[in-house]
Amino acid sequence: MCRFVIYKGTSPVQLSHLLTRPCHSIINQAFDSRLRLDRRRPINGDGFGVGWYDTVYDEELGSQPCIFTSVTPAWNNANLIRLAEKIKSPLVFGHVRATTAGSLSLDNCHPFVFGKIMFMHNGGIADFHLIKRKLQSGLSDEVFNTVQGNTDSEWAFALFLSKLPNPHAKSFTPQVLQQAMLNTISALNSYAEEAGITEPSLMNFCVTDGESVVATRYISSRQDEAASLWFSSGTTFSEYMTGGHYKMTKADKRENIIMIASEPLTFEKADWMEIRTNNMVVITPKMNFLQIPIIDKFYVSPSDPAALNRGTDFAAAKGLLSPRNSLAPVQGREPAPQIVI
Amino acid sequence: MCRFVIYKGTSPVQLSHLLTRPCHSIINQAFDSRLRLDRRRPINGDGFGVGWYDTVYDEELGSQPCIFTSVTPAWNNANLIRLAEKIKSPLVFGHVRATTAGSLSLDNCHPFVFGKIMFMHNGGIADFHLIKRKLQSGLSDEVFNTVQGNTDSEWAFALFLSKLPNPHAKSFTPQVLQQAMLNTISALNSYAEEAGITEPSLMNFCVTDGESVVATRYISSRQDEAASLWFSSGTTFSEYMTGGHYKMTKADKRENIIMIASEPLTFEKADWMEIRTNNMVVITPKMNFLQIPIIDKFYVSPSDPAALNRGTDFAAAKGLLSPRNSLAPVQGREPAPQIVI
Amino acid sequence: MCRFVIYKGTSPVQLSHLLTRPCHSIINQAFDSRLRLDRRRPINGDGFGVGWYDTVYDEELGSQPCIFTSVTPAWNNANLIRLAEKIKSPLVFGHVRATTAGSLSLDNCHPFVFGKIMFMHNGGIADFHLIKRKLQSGLSDEVFNTVQGNTDSEWAFALFLSKLPNPHAKSFTPQVLQQAMLNTISALNSYAEEAGITEPSLMNFCVTDGESVVATRYISSRQDEAASLWFSSGTTFSEYMTGGHYKMTKADKRENIIMIASEPLTFEKADWMEIRTNNMVVITPKMNFLQIPIIDKFYVSPSDPAALNRGTDFAAAKGLLSPRNSLAPVQGREPAPQIVI
Amino acid sequence: MCRFVIYKGTSPVQLSHLLTRPCHSIINQAFDSRLRLDRRRPINGDGFGVGWYDTVYDEELGSQPCIFTSVTPAWNNANLIRLAEKIKSPLVFGHVRATTAGSLSLDNCHPFVFGKIMFMHNGGIADFHLIKRKLQSGLSDEVFNTVQGNTDSEWAFALFLSKLPNPHAKSFTPQVLQQAMLNTISALNSYAEEAGITEPSLMNFCVTDGESVVATRYISSRQDEAASLWFSSGTTFSEYMTGGHYKMTKADKRENIIMIASEPLTFEKADWMEIRTNNMVVITPKMNFLQIPIIDKFYVSPSDPAALNRGTDFAAAKGLLSPRNSLAPVQGREPAPQIVI
Repeated sequence: MCRFVIYKGTSPVQLSHLLTRPCHSIINQAFDSRLRLDRRRPINGDGFGVGWYDTVYDEELGSQPCIFTSVTPAWNNANLIRLAEKIKSPLVFGHVRATTAGSLSLDNCHPFVFGKIMFMHNGGIADFHLIKRKLQSGLSDEVFNTVQGNTDSEWAFALFLSKLPNPHAKSFTPQVLQQAMLNTISALNSYAEEAGITEPSLMNFCVTDGESVVATRYISSRQDEAASLWFSSGTTFSEYMTGGHYKMTKADKRENIIMIASEPLTFEKADWMEIRTNNMVVITPKMNFLQIPIIDKFYVSPSDPAALNRGTDFAAAKGLLSPRNSLAPVQGREPAPQIVI
Repeated sequence: MCRFVIYKGTSPVQLSHLLTRPCHSIINQAFDSRLRLDRRRPINGDGFGVGWYDTVYDEELGSQPCIFTSVTPAWNNANLIRLAEKIKSPLVFGHVRATTAGSLSLDNCHPFVFGKIMFMHNGGIADFHLIKRKLQSGLSDEVFNTVQGNTDSEWAFALFLSKLPNPHAKSFTPQVLQQAMLNTISALNSYAEEAGITEPSLMNFCVTDGESVVATRYISSRQDEAASLWFSSGTTFSEYMTGGHYKMTKADKRENIIMIASEPLTFEKADWMEIRTNNMVVITPKMNFLQIPIIDKFYVSPSDPAALNRGTDFAAAKGLLSPRNSLAPVQGREPAPQIVI
Repeated sequence: MCRFVIYKGTSPVQLSHLLTRPCHSIINQAFDSRLRLDRRRPINGDGFGVGWYDTVYDEELGSQPCIFTSVTPAWNNANLIRLAEKIKSPLVFGHVRATTAGSLSLDNCHPFVFGKIMFMHNGGIADFHLIKRKLQSGLSDEVFNTVQGNTDSEWAFALFLSKLPNPHAKSFTPQVLQQAMLNTISALNSYAEEAGITEPSLMNFCVTDGESVVATRYISSRQDEAASLWFSSGTTFSEYMTGGHYKMTKADKRENIIMIASEPLTFEKADWMEIRTNNMVVITPKMNFLQIPIIDKFYVSPSDPAALNRGTDFAAAKGLLSPRNSLAPVQGREPAPQIVI
Repeated sequence: MCRFVIYKGTSPVQLSHLLTRPCHSIINQAFDSRLRLDRRRPINGDGFGVGWYDTVYDEELGSQPCIFTSVTPAWNNANLIRLAEKIKSPLVFGHVRATTAGSLSLDNCHPFVFGKIMFMHNGGIADFHLIKRKLQSGLSDEVFNTVQGNTDSEWAFALFLSKLPNPHAKSFTPQVLQQAMLNTISALNSYAEEAGITEPSLMNFCVTDGESVVATRYISSRQDEAASLWFSSGTTFSEYMTGGHYKMTKADKRENIIMIASEPLTFEKADWMEIRTNNMVVITPKMNFLQIPIIDKFYVSPSDPAALNRGTDFAAAKGLLSPRNSLAPVQGREPAPQIVI
């Protein structure tokens, strides 16, 4: 399994507060077996990556994010530890990887970048080798040749790029990113159907252009739960007790920080709300947070009793389900208008 | 914590049967949380090493062992997987490491080699920084300059070499290796006492010259258990069920194979016997197996009720205690004559 | 540029005599600027690989070669130095790489392996991105999915496999390997022509099944020299002067050793003969050595004055031409019967 | 040999302009054999490091520099290339390494850091193994235990720290750093004399506290030249021709940029002035540049004819002498008052 975290804030965060210091960070979860989801193998021993945007735009430095990746474990990476103490950013993607597909190689580490767009994936495209050639045939030469590694995730990113009206555009509206994401999922579903693949694909994708963030919690199944996905929002994220114990504080109604993660990143469960299976969430440039159902043949309405019957065995077998005390849906938030694909 | 395994056989073993294929190997234990001892961090993400001797002596190749080490995790090391399929050896040391001391560096990976002598350690010398200079002052220039890394373990090996009458000797009797090992432990205890160190040191050391093997299960405490140490012997070690399920078979009275490991390497607990705390075991060139108490101020006789009262908290806190159902001592083997140091 | 060496002998060679000890080995050539061909960048800083077959067939170990690769420089690789001192083999491929194409990744290191077949490449397929998709479309799913990296060389190997009647065959005649090689070159030429590519491709390929060796010195041009390729044969290859000075000795008429290399591996130039541009050489299982012209539209007969006019600028600009004192063709060897493709 | 560069400017430099983009940077010099000084081995294949201070002090980030090191070659390090495009700093140390001493390990990569002090070395302490123990015996426990690797350079840094009145001080005057540097050299000379070492040591050291920079060009010999050291100053350092051709521009009398490097970093030789053998240079916080002779028994006055007779063979044999057209001393700068040690 993999794990990831997204941070978007009105103020920059020191990367160490997100990645290396919290005892409950995606990197340090590996240390504490109470937090271990995947009983098959240690997480994040197979490389990791972090990508971040500058706090202030600098013409010389450009608008693309910076990426740091490694094939040695994150928890013991001297460069990561030093960089995380010295870099601040208002928009960060972090990803730890277990090689479910693709070899151990820098080329296979998330996040992937194209211009100012950054992308990562938690999950797996079922029987990807059966649809790889079909997927490739639909790509432009430029996008086809941009792929460096050999993972389903990087090819899914290439597919996403091919769904954008112009991947070189200077800026993107959230709607453009959302639509490309929906089209990506739809295309992957079509390819799987054509190839007669019956195993569900786990498609928790995240993408950003440095301003908006779009993330999905999705599975191509009506019977199974998707890989877990949570979010938290508040005013400050800080250490309240030595030993790396962090929590989110909500000082007022303003939400200065929104975090999305494959599982809760603090021990304060109340701070974290689960994103519903087969939903997309959006963080707009102005920090609005939307949750939008992805209505297709795998969608089950929360009001449908079947929604409670999605089984957890599949995602659990892939090591992709976070522990939780309840299936309580996100409180206090009405679903945004539905989008049909 | 670290983990290690020793194999000595009358026939060579294909390294993959020892290291990469068994689901219960020191490398793969990390995958199965049922086998996880150390709740603080994933094992063996911080490098590993394997050392082996040739099956047949070849004058051109010499008598030193070959060593392969890596700082990337063993479970995903393409070179290890390929080499292990192609190399056979009658005497193998394997070691996986978590960096309790020393940085992530090839120089810090066990086993360490000097001429034909190979050495590894599981445990930790308490407050090593307080005795490092004292230890160094007792070494010859040659041994002092042979150290490449910065771990307590490698300096303990240097100390061991300094206790040999001649570390360049062409061969060593088991007795010479045993005595040097006892002197090493004794010296470390003296240094700790002089420095006023009260925390116990965990000294599970293994050494071989390619013919004899000497290993210790030792702690400088009368109240605590040492890090765990087990052995198994038999005629063949082979896969009895697909999926990497191995077991030791005892076809006749001959013991063609002796394995010593930080914890049982198969699910057949009956195949594994625990080595008593503060004992030394010896495999002679002719495959005799001896267990010898290390009688010093930290020794507690098995007949002394206090022997059952050694606490497991200390070793467990260091992640160095294997699970077990009973404290049953090694059956059917009389302790060899005691050695007093 | 890259460099490679092939060793095939009736007796096994200790890898260190081929790779790490000779001052003039493909690894150490980087140290001596007199030997530097490529003025653009240091050779072999971008990874290397070595593949070898067992001296004696062992049913448990199988017939596939063992591969060791690394992305850190070969001259300072502790594992390579140790392994090379301990491994002997009668058939070895060694390759050092500069990343003319593909990222720095283990997946991109030569030699590549499929079953018992081993392959490596020195040169470059011109404008490969323009023919990559066409090449891929002709591959079987199995071969398509076997590619792990992103280099022209590995895709050329996949193409070669697709030209074999059965890549899973237990053995191959030299003729089968030769024909597949010719078909590979022919297909690459067709793809380039269709794509309108005018820059020549440098196709020095080597392949073996563990018994026969087929290597090409080839360029898709009538005006330019191919990347250099040399061979030497003799009875023993040994150090005649300390400091890593090796030479080939011809004790009698028997040829126990044949070496093929991108440039001479000793200072004894007389020991090395140049393989003609656009020729294929074959070492048969019984150590016969054949040189066969590759007759296609890029072939120029040695009796044609134009043969002397091939320019060296192109290969030199790619850093792929070894120094030589003369263009003297291989002496004392009649070309074998021609093959037309 | 190693190579290094120091940048100090009134404005921050994008690291890529210093490290990765110039065709003549310390990283790219390896590509161009016209620039190769060391005929024995490729430079910078054995790891590199870069350290930099923040442009604006941020209380959360602290005043220590950030360090990025790697054991894979710098010219092909994807992380370095990406970071260098995104990081700006007013004070940068860059170092590329060939392993003349110490193994290939992150622990051995320069620059070394202690609190806010950063240090690097180009050269070698002759017969260091003969004085290592003596040097260590003079260190405080704290400094002794801070050393992670096994190089003469890191131990020289430890010695330097021990010569500071308080290595934990919040700030240092240039004079304090200068005096500690002189004491370090003096101590190394004493140790060598006691040990009867006759080979000269090459001691080009650089140190900074983030405000002042002190660098030495020094050899413990009256007959030989030290390893080369150059500086350049100007108003802007920018690319004047595509292909990575940079030059220093002097727009006015102000010196906004001072660079010190083991050899000229542009093809404009006139922009670079050589620092005299056995001199120390200082860049003050206010960007004054001082050159100060190091007067001891190895000092030869520039007015002494013997000064012109220092031989270049020794440094050249170590690969540590840059090419130059003349021995012209730094023009237009009077030596600062001498310091006697």
